[in-house]
Order: sequence, then C-alpha cells, then structure tokens
Amino acid sequence: MIVVLTGGTGGTKFADGLRRVINPQDLTVIVNTADDFQWWGLHISPDIDSVMYVLSGRVSKERGWGIAQDTFFCLQTMKQLDEPSWFQVGDRDLAVHLLRTKLLAQGKTLTEATAKIASKMDLQVGVLPMSDSRVQTRVNTPAGELSFQEYFVKRGYQDSVNSVRFEGASEAKAAPGVIDAILSADAVFVAPSNPVTSIGPILAVAQIRQALRDTSAPVAAISPIIGSAPVSGPAGILMAAQGFPISINGVAKAYEDFLDVLIVDDADEAAAKELERSDLRVSCMNIMMRSENDREQLAKRALSFVSQNLPRKISVAS
Amino acid sequence: MIVVLTGGTGGTKFADGLRRVINPQDLTVIVNTADDFQWWGLHISPDIDSVMYVLSGRVSKERGWGIAQDTFFCLQTMKQLDEPSWFQVGDRDLAVHLLRTKLLAQGKTLTEATAKIASKMDLQVGVLPMSDSRVQTRVNTPAGELSFQEYFVKRGYQDSVNSVRFEGASEAKAAPGVIDAILSADAVFVAPSNPVTSIGPILAVAQIRQALRDTSAPVAAISPIIGSAPVSGPAGILMAAQGFPISINGVAKAYEDFLDVLIVDDADEAAAKELERSDLRVSCMNIMMRSENDREQLAKRALSFVSQNLPRKISVAS
Repeated sequence: MIVVLTGGTGGTKFADGLRRVINPQDLTVIVNTADDFQWWGLHISPDIDSVMYVLSGRVSKERGWGIAQDTFFCLQTMKQLDEPSWFQVGDRDLAVHLLRTKLLAQGKTLTEATAKIASKMDLQVGVLPMSDSRVQTRVNTPAGELSFQEYFVKRGYQDSVNSVRFEGASEAKAAPGVIDAILSADAVFVAPSNPVTSIGPILAVAQIRQALRDTSAPVAAISPIIGSAPVSGPAGILMAAQGFPISINGVAKAYEDFLDVLIVDDADEAAAKELERSDLRVSCMNIMMRSENDREQLAKRALSFVSQNLPRKISVAS
Repeated sequence: MIVVLTGGTGGTKFADGLRRVINPQDLTVIVNTADDFQWWGLHISPDIDSVMYVLSGRVSKERGWGIAQDTFFCLQTMKQLDEPSWFQVGDRDLAVHLLRTKLLAQGKTLTEATAKIASKMDLQVGVLPMSDSRVQTRVNTPAGELSFQEYFVKRGYQDSVNSVRFEGASEAKAAPGVIDAILSADAVFVAPSNPVTSIGPILAVAQIRQALRDTSAPVAAISPIIGSAPVSGPAGILMAAQGFPISINGVAKAYEDFLDVLIVDDADEAAAKELERSDLRVSCMNIMMRSENDREQLAKRALSFVSQNLPRKISVAS
C-alpha cells in the first residue's frame, strides 16, 4: 500500500502518476482540508475535489482545475444577483458541492461524504480527508487575516505574508483510516505541494505528524521547489514567511523530523549532494510534470528509488 | 392597489397581464408556498419562482417554467452521481435556489428572502409568500400520501386522488403584508390557478380567508375551468376529490364565502346566467391566455368589469 499526502493541483499530478503505474486500489491519498470553505452556503473542499477530478480523469486539462468542458451559467446568474463570484464554480462542479453539503447536513462526516462521492465517480484510489474536524488555514497579511481562498483565489496571492496559522489544528484528530494508512504503508510520499499551506495543515494535526515519525515505511517527499523558486504558486512567499529557505534545504527542513528521502530536480544536483546525510537520502530526477508521461515517469522513478529502502517490493507497471 | 392570489404557471399568466396594463408597483402578488420542498438540500419555492420568472420576463416561453435558455448540466451531473433528477433544475435557476437557501440559513424569513431576490431581479411587482410558516400540500392517493411535487412532477399526476390536506395550515399565520394588502386593496383577484392545490393552501391560512371575507374591495376570480374541464393540469381530478363539481359552479363553490365576481369563458355563457345571483356577478369573456396579448386583454377586461364595483377608479394603460 502506497500513501500520498497532498494538497490541490500540483501534488495531485504526482498522485495521478502513481495511480497510473501501480494498482490504483493500492493507493491511498490523504488530502489537505484546511482550504475548505463555505461558498453560496455550500461546503467546498477544493483539494479533495481536485484530487477526485484528476484521479477520475474528469479534470479540465486546459484550466488544471474543475471539470472538463464545464460551463459557468449558475455563476453568471449569481453575479447578476450580486452574489460573490470570485470563486469559479462550474455547473457540473456544483453537483459535487451540492451532494457533499447535503451529506454533511444529514450528519455524515467529511470522510463518509468523500467516500460516497468517490464511489459514485468510480474512483479506484482511496481518498481520505486529513481530518473530519474543522481546520482552517489563516494567512496573516498587512491587509488583515485572510482565509486561504481569499488570499489565493480572490486576491491572487499578491499580498505579502507575515505568517500562517492553522485554526483548529491543535484540537483536530486525524480522520478515520489516516493513521492506519500511514503506519501500515509500504511507502509514504509527500507530494510536491506547497509545504506551508497544502502539506502544512496535514502535519499540523499532531497525530499525523507523529505517525509519519513512527511508521516503519520510508517517507519520501518530492520537492515543490527547483533552485530558488517554486514550480508554481505562492509556495516561496509562504515558506519565507514561515522561516524556511526557498530551496530544497527549506523543504528538507519543513519535513526534517520524519523525512527519509527527498526527491529533487536534476537542476539541484549540487545542492542535493550537500544536503545528503546519513538519515536523509536525496535523489535527483526530472520532477517537472508537464505531461501525463512526465507524471508516470516521475512516479516510476520515485517508487524505484524508494523501493531500495522498502521492506516489501512495490509492483510497478512496466 | 391590486392584489392577486396565485399559484404557479397558469395564474401567473394573469398576474403578468395585470402588470402590463397597470403600474406594476401597484400590483401585489400573494403566492402559494405549500408546494415548497427540499431538493438537493436546497429550499425550492416553485410557485414563487414561476411568479418571479414570468413577471421579470425571465421565464422560458417554450417550457412555460424555469429560465429562458437555461441549461441542465448540474442536473445531468447529479444524475451521474445517482442523485434524484426528476425535478428539472436548470443551471441559472439553481442560482435562485442557492441564494434563497443561503438567506433562509442566515435566519431570514421567506418573505425577506423573496423580497431580496425580487429586488435583485428588478421586479417592480410586489411578491409575497402566503406565509412564512411551513405549510405542505399532501395528496392522498392509493399509492400513499405524496408531496405535491411527487404527485405533480415525479408521477405526472397519473394517480387517482382520494383527498388533499395542507399540513401545518391550521397553525400558519399569513406572512407580513398579506392581510394589509388584502384589506387595503382596490380589488383582489383570484388568478385562474388550481382552486385546490394552488389557491386552496392560501385559503387554508385562516387569517387570509377571513381577510378576503372582510375586505371592502371586490374579490374576483378568473375560472381555471372551461365547460367541464380545466384549462390545464390536474385541477379537475383534485376538485372532484375535494367534492367540488368540475365546472364554473365548482369554482364558485370553492370561493363562495368571499367571492363577488366570477369571470368565466364565453363558452360558459349559459352556465354563467344560471350561476349569477344577487351577491355573485358572473362575467363572460375570453379567458384562454395563449399569447401575451391574450393576457393583457383578459387583464384589461377583468379590471374593467370589476371597476364597475370599485370604490376607486383603477388606472388601466390604454
């Protein structure tokens, strides 16, 4: 069993590579839920949706988010009714938010709602929210404290960032299945998502961070940083705000208490050699995922590298 | 001030005729809410929506319900997720249900939510739900007791009907503004809607029925029956189930305690003469509304006939 910790779009590509090269039923994805928010009265789980849309083949390849060929007529009408329209909900997308909100209103947990929706999408991969408790990423900026979606989508991550905190994380428990998955895994991957606001909230759940330290499985991260810049998005700004260097060293530092393997880009070969030490193996490969083939190749090479440290053999499709 | 009591599609055409021939700000429409129901976790008010869509010019003229040129992509996706899909919610339509549901969840009353949505639609006509309390039409059939939407939409009114009741009506109060509107009106019209399940629930709110008896304004109904059949829908079956003849006599009987004027089709001239008595004037005209011009003509003629009994003159556009 392979476990991946991930946020939205970036890390999801790596999970997609994995499900293409192993038996997808042997893959469990643990997803950040600290970006979840209420929109038009609906419970939106942006990262869970991204994972499900990508792993079920529904995602819009042009946009990289939402459902392929989706339309935005409800959104347009909402705008005409003077309702907020900065978060782009498609008409097909809306069905998923409606169903999740209905299930939660019926008393289902987020884990149960996610399992039901994933099953209706014929998803083979296991998708687990990190927690059924409410954890909320709060971004402290000169303009005030913002929710992640306000910071990221509404304001296009143009604000400078003083700090980030995860409201509710100290009381949050891991969702059912999360700790077991990590402890019984053959390998755990930290996807190349933003270490602060995508992986950070997952690690802020103390039980999960402890399980990553305790598991006998190797824990490997794919760096979201190449050289001194993130592959995409605001990871650099956010890492700096939290005191991490914007480099593979910063990634290693963010995960230092549990990381066994760090997979970095070929471009970071020199830094990789300096970083490697007895308890941290660093492997260089192409980590840019521009195509589906890139995803598969990265997944294969990462599995192959990690399998050198694996107690059991991982079956990788040829 | 002119007041119209109405249900969904049929009666709404008459209200639309009125707003075209008088100052729309002088028109208040009191709407049946006993067909309201929860759908995908949203609060749907089918008759309020019909009234707002027709009176704001948004209605689909082809379908006679919903919003013009609307699409159904959310509905299709819901169906793919195995959610119920027999109630046809369009993508643009959905925005209205989302906004209403959000406002109600924020603690707003249905009256307040309706006023806000109507204002965002630039509706000139006043739209009042009959009640802010929950009243539900329940249709007793050999297949069991059904909600109105189950009976009407899901099962296409194919069941025979034993009886109809209005759950919650005995405790329901009229919504704010309803009683004042009726008591201070220059004329009250009962639109040609189904007397049992469209107008019936409004009358089942005791305060409203009493206000119709008490008002000094003439109360005029347009018959939804021509000869021995309804113009459309299941009005005949439902009238028979409630013990009313399926004829203009049945309409007169349903409203006998407050009706001053009954407007019937030219085809019912003979029956009209028999029905007329000292306290009920019956007027024959073309009541079929096939075109917008038909609506305007009926509204003008109805206003003209009723104005003979009016304390004040109603200004009708020429």
